[in-house]
Amino acid sequence: MSEYKLYGMAESGHTYKVALMLELMGADWQAEFVDFFNGETRTEKYRTELNAMGEVPVLIVDGQKMTQSGVIMDYLAEKHNQFGGNTADEKREILRWVLYDNHKLSALIGPYRFMKFIKDMPDNDVTAFLKGRFEDALSILDKHLTDKDWVVLNRPTLADFSLCSYLYFGDEWGFDAEKYTNIVKWLDNLKGLKGWKHPYDLLPKGLNKG
Amino acid sequence: MSEYKLYGMAESGHTYKVALMLELMGADWQAEFVDFFNGETRTEKYRTELNAMGEVPVLIVDGQKMTQSGVIMDYLAEKHNQFGGNTADEKREILRWVLYDNHKLSALIGPYRFMKFIKDMPDNDVTAFLKGRFEDALSILDKHLTDKDWVVLNRPTLADFSLCSYLYFGDEWGFDAEKYTNIVKWLDNLKGLKGWKHPYDLLPKGLNKG
Repeated sequence: MSEYKLYGMAESGHTYKVALMLELMGADWQAEFVDFFNGETRTEKYRTELNAMGEVPVLIVDGQKMTQSGVIMDYLAEKHNQFGGNTADEKREILRWVLYDNHKLSALIGPYRFMKFIKDMPDNDVTAFLKGRFEDALSILDKHLTDKDWVVLNRPTLADFSLCSYLYFGDEWGFDAEKYTNIVKWLDNLKGLKGWKHPYDLLPKGLNKG
Repeated sequence: MSEYKLYGMAESGHTYKVALMLELMGADWQAEFVDFFNGETRTEKYRTELNAMGEVPVLIVDGQKMTQSGVIMDYLAEKHNQFGGNTADEKREILRWVLYDNHKLSALIGPYRFMKFIKDMPDNDVTAFLKGRFEDALSILDKHLTDKDWVVLNRPTLADFSLCSYLYFGDEWGFDAEKYTNIVKWLDNLKGLKGWKHPYDLLPKGLNKG
């Protein structure tokens, strides 16, 4: 049995954040497929046994369950002494970007991509609302990345893994590569890391598209 | 001059999270009004001098700027040894709820209340979308609070301050007190803490309503 079991699926950017980190660390891990698209995370069983918040990912290690990608990555960084901050200031700057991602990027791009790509919905007031908000956040991230290789330090940290996730599905929801050139450069830096894989090559898929 | 300067305004639940914590700690702090409703956070000056993310709150302490309420509260908890976790597990459980709040509660109730109350917009597809999502999250929080006085430990922590914020504006956006009875009880526990104040009694207001 692997040291880490990661519950989730390839379509979930939140699962990918953790999967990518485990893979780049060379950790002994395996994926456990969650049938999100058929409602598994809404079942009583899932909410009782895995995550009361009804979300993926869930990490199981030493019989302990952990949820929220930001929490799991923080745990892994401490344990493996990799991809985290070394000082209190560095740790806080990483947390700052993880919170920003959870509030203003993944939280908006995730549902947007779900509507546009997974559900094939036409543009509507909700997609326009989501897009307006995440485009602002992407502009801020792009500006921040001017002359920077990584988001927080001069090396990759878990903040990079958090922020990048839904951007690797960019072709599915129309990420504007012409507009966000610093983001594109940074995504290429991540791709250049030994062991990097696209979500669809790292985790089991729930759908026959993408 | 006070030890802490907190930039924000009374209408901002995110600012309130930090203001409430400072007040309950009996910290030496003062509020600095940000004219959010007239676009101050969108100005080049604000983004250069205070917060490139264009958000409130910002905390200034010892000449250092800090942003993201979750980061600021973590800093305050460490420094004052109050309202944080004592063990790594406790700290992670607090972070788990702060992330959940940032992703699924404040991030959705904030814009919903902005549309419904601040902008007096009628119900529409976007408000329905936001409401559908945050009602799910409120149900999960309410269930979690069954037989609990506080969200994470047997004492108040910064996770409580993060989650409660927009709920004290509940009359403005139609919080359903009949439905979420555990949440109501928990909000009353918070109100019972020595020094508790409503956002409008703790911070300068930007609007003549509410």
